[in-house]
Amino acid sequence: MDSRITVVEDEGITVIKDLQCCGIKEGKHGLGIVKCRGTCAGVFTQNKLKAAPLLVTRENLQNGKKEGLVVNSGNANAFTGKQGVENARKMAELLSSKMGCDPKSVLVASTGVIGQQLDMKWIVEKVEKLYPQLDSTRQSSSDFAKSVTTTDKFTKEFVVKVDDAFIAGVAKGAGMIAPNMATMLSFIYTDAHFGSQELQEMLTTAVDRSFNVTVVDGDTSTNDMVLLTATGQKQVERSLFQEGLNKVCFELAKMIARDGEGATKLLEIEVRGAAREEDAFKAAKAIASSLLVKTAIFGNDPNWGRVVAALGYSGAEVDENLSLTLEGGSDSVVLVDKGSIISREEEAKKLMEKNKEIKFTVDLHKGEYNGFAMGCDLSYEYVGINAEYTT
Amino acid sequence: MDSRITVVEDEGITVIKDLQCCGIKEGKHGLGIVKCRGTCAGVFTQNKLKAAPLLVTRENLQNGKKEGLVVNSGNANAFTGKQGVENARKMAELLSSKMGCDPKSVLVASTGVIGQQLDMKWIVEKVEKLYPQLDSTRQSSSDFAKSVTTTDKFTKEFVVKVDDAFIAGVAKGAGMIAPNMATMLSFIYTDAHFGSQELQEMLTTAVDRSFNVTVVDGDTSTNDMVLLTATGQKQVERSLFQEGLNKVCFELAKMIARDGEGATKLLEIEVRGAAREEDAFKAAKAIASSLLVKTAIFGNDPNWGRVVAALGYSGAEVDENLSLTLEGGSDSVVLVDKGSIISREEEAKKLMEKNKEIKFTVDLHKGEYNGFAMGCDLSYEYVGINAEYTT
Repeated sequence: MDSRITVVEDEGITVIKDLQCCGIKEGKHGLGIVKCRGTCAGVFTQNKLKAAPLLVTRENLQNGKKEGLVVNSGNANAFTGKQGVENARKMAELLSSKMGCDPKSVLVASTGVIGQQLDMKWIVEKVEKLYPQLDSTRQSSSDFAKSVTTTDKFTKEFVVKVDDAFIAGVAKGAGMIAPNMATMLSFIYTDAHFGSQELQEMLTTAVDRSFNVTVVDGDTSTNDMVLLTATGQKQVERSLFQEGLNKVCFELAKMIARDGEGATKLLEIEVRGAAREEDAFKAAKAIASSLLVKTAIFGNDPNWGRVVAALGYSGAEVDENLSLTLEGGSDSVVLVDKGSIISREEEAKKLMEKNKEIKFTVDLHKGEYNGFAMGCDLSYEYVGINAEYTT
Repeated sequence: MDSRITVVEDEGITVIKDLQCCGIKEGKHGLGIVKCRGTCAGVFTQNKLKAAPLLVTRENLQNGKKEGLVVNSGNANAFTGKQGVENARKMAELLSSKMGCDPKSVLVASTGVIGQQLDMKWIVEKVEKLYPQLDSTRQSSSDFAKSVTTTDKFTKEFVVKVDDAFIAGVAKGAGMIAPNMATMLSFIYTDAHFGSQELQEMLTTAVDRSFNVTVVDGDTSTNDMVLLTATGQKQVERSLFQEGLNKVCFELAKMIARDGEGATKLLEIEVRGAAREEDAFKAAKAIASSLLVKTAIFGNDPNWGRVVAALGYSGAEVDENLSLTLEGGSDSVVLVDKGSIISREEEAKKLMEKNKEIKFTVDLHKGEYNGFAMGCDLSYEYVGINAEYTT
C-alpha cells in the first residue's frame, strides 16, 4: 500500500467533517440516518427483482448534490410492488421534510425479510425520535453501524487517511453474501473532491475486487447497494484515492466474510498463472463457493481433492499440471506441485486446526493472470440461522 | 405415461436376460462387476479434470460390442495422473482376462476420494474373489447396487417394462449432486435393440431432464457417468423406448435427490410460462440450488421471498408479475398471485411441517415454456457428513 495511505484505528464515518448520524436497533428492526452533503455514486445488485429502495435511490442519484440517507433493517421492502415504492419515497420525505431539502436529495436503503410491506408507523416514529439525536460523535457512528445490521455478529467500520483526506466506510452483511453483492449494504464517505462520474468509476472498480469476490452462500439479494459520498473539501490524486477506496472496500468485505452466518473460519483463495483474468476470478470464486470445500474447512479436513474438483468445473482453462498450497498464519504446506501429489495430510490438518484464517493458493501454470476470492466455512450454525429466519 | 410402459416392482438389473453381476462392500470400499454383452452409450461429467476411469471408458466406448463393467467405490481414481490411467486400464484387464475378451470391451467407473492412487492389491483380490460369484439372481443385483455406493443411505434400482422389453437401472449418488451430474454413477441395461448412435441420443435426452436437473449441493464431480447397454433381443419403437428411459432416469434421479446427504425433504420446482425453455430450467435450478431456500425447507419456514430472490438472480426473464404456489401431498397454498402477495404463512408452514415432499410451482407469465428441477433441503447432518469425509 502507498505510504500516503494509513489505517485510522477505532474511527467511524463521523471522522468526516460536517457528517452527522444516528441509529437505533430494537430487536430485529433498526433505523439509521446520515446527514451529509456531497456528490454521490452507487453500485446496485444485479438481481432482476430489485427492491423498492434501490429503485428510488437509483432515481434520486441522477441529479445534483445529496443531503442524507435513511436506512431500515429487518424488512427489505422487496417484492412489495407500488406500495413498496411509495413507502421508500415516503422514507426519503420523512427526512427531507425535517432537513428542509428536496426529497430527491435523500437516499434510502433497506435490508431484511422479502415480501412484507414496511411498518410505516414504526418508521415515522423512529425518524421523529432520532432526528434530534443526529450527532458527530464516535458513538453516533457506532449507533448507525449497529442500526443497519440484521444477522451480523459485529458492526463493520473501516477508515483510512489518504494524504489529508479520509475515506470512512460502514457495512452490513453476513448471510446471503455472494459474488455480485448479496444482501450487503455499504455506505462510504470521504471529504475528498471528485465529480460524480469519477466517483462512479472508482467505486465500481473497488467493489469488483472486494464485495463482488466475497462469497458466503452464493445467493444474490434483491437489496444490495454500495453508496459513496464525497463532501469535496480535500484534493487527492485519483490513483491514490482509488487505492485507499480499494482498501476500505476490501477490509469491509473481509469483515463480512469473517462474519458469514455461522462462520468459524475465513477462507481466502488466490489463483495465479491463469490464461485470462476472467479465468483467475472464475476459478477463485468456484473454490470459495464450493459447499464441499466450505464444509471441509469447517471440519479441518484437508480434502484438497474438492479444491481440484471445483477448479475443474469452474469454467477456467485448467489441467492436472497445477500447483496447490495451503497457508495459515506463517505456515504453508504444498499439497500439489505441478500435478504431483505431495502427501502431507497430517501437516495440513494441523495447520487447519491451528488457524482461523485459511488460504489456498493455486497456480494453474497457464499464463500471467491472477485473481482472488474470499469466503468462509459452512457450519452447523449456518443451517440453524437460516432454517428459522422469518418464523 | 404411455400404457405400454409399466413399472416393475422389486427388480434389478438381473431382470435382463443373460446379464450376470455381483458386488461387495467392505467399510468405505466396494467393488462391483457386471457381465453383459451389448451395444453401449455413455454420458460423462462436464468437469474439465476428468477422472482416469472416464478417460478409459470413453476410449473403450468407441468401438464395438462391450462385454462387461468393473466399478469401485471409496476411491475416485481422480487427479491421479498417468498412474491413475494405468490402474483404470488394469481394472478392465483384470475382468477381460477372466472373461477371455479384449480389455477394450470392458468399461470402468470409480467414485470416492479424489487424489489418491487405487489400492490395486485390494482390487485384484476382490476381482479374483467375486468373478466366480457372478450370478443372475435378484440378490446379485442388490449386491452390485450396494457395492457402488459411498455416502448413500439406500441402494437405488428402478425397472420398467416397455412393450415386452425391460429397461433396468441402478444408480449411486447422494452428495455432490448438481446440474451436470456430480459424483453420480448410473448403469442402465435393456434387452431392446438399438444402434449405438440412437442409444447415445436417447440417453443424452433422458439425462438432461433427470440427473442434470437434480441439485444437492451444486458441486460437479470429476467422475460422473451414465452408461446404457442394450443387448438387442427385443424390438421397441424408439419414441416409446425414450419415454421408458426417461422414466427410469427420472426415478433414479429422484432417489438421489431424496438421498441428498443429510436430506430430510425432497424439493421439486416447476417453472411455467417462461419466455424461453432455457429460462424455465435456469429459474428452476436457481431455486433448487439456493442455500437459503434449502435451509428454509429444512426449517419448515415458508420464507418464499428467498424463492423470489433466486428467480431474480437466475438469469431468466422475470418481473414482479409472477405467481407462486406451494404444494405438498394433496394440499396447495397460493403465496403470490400475479404479483399480489397472499398472506397465508400459517397454512404454508403447516403444509411444510406435514409433508416430506415439497413443491414450488412458479408461473412467470412471460411465455409458453416450462422447466423443472429437483433437490433437497440442507440440514445440520449435511454439514456433519461433509466436514469429516476423508479423515
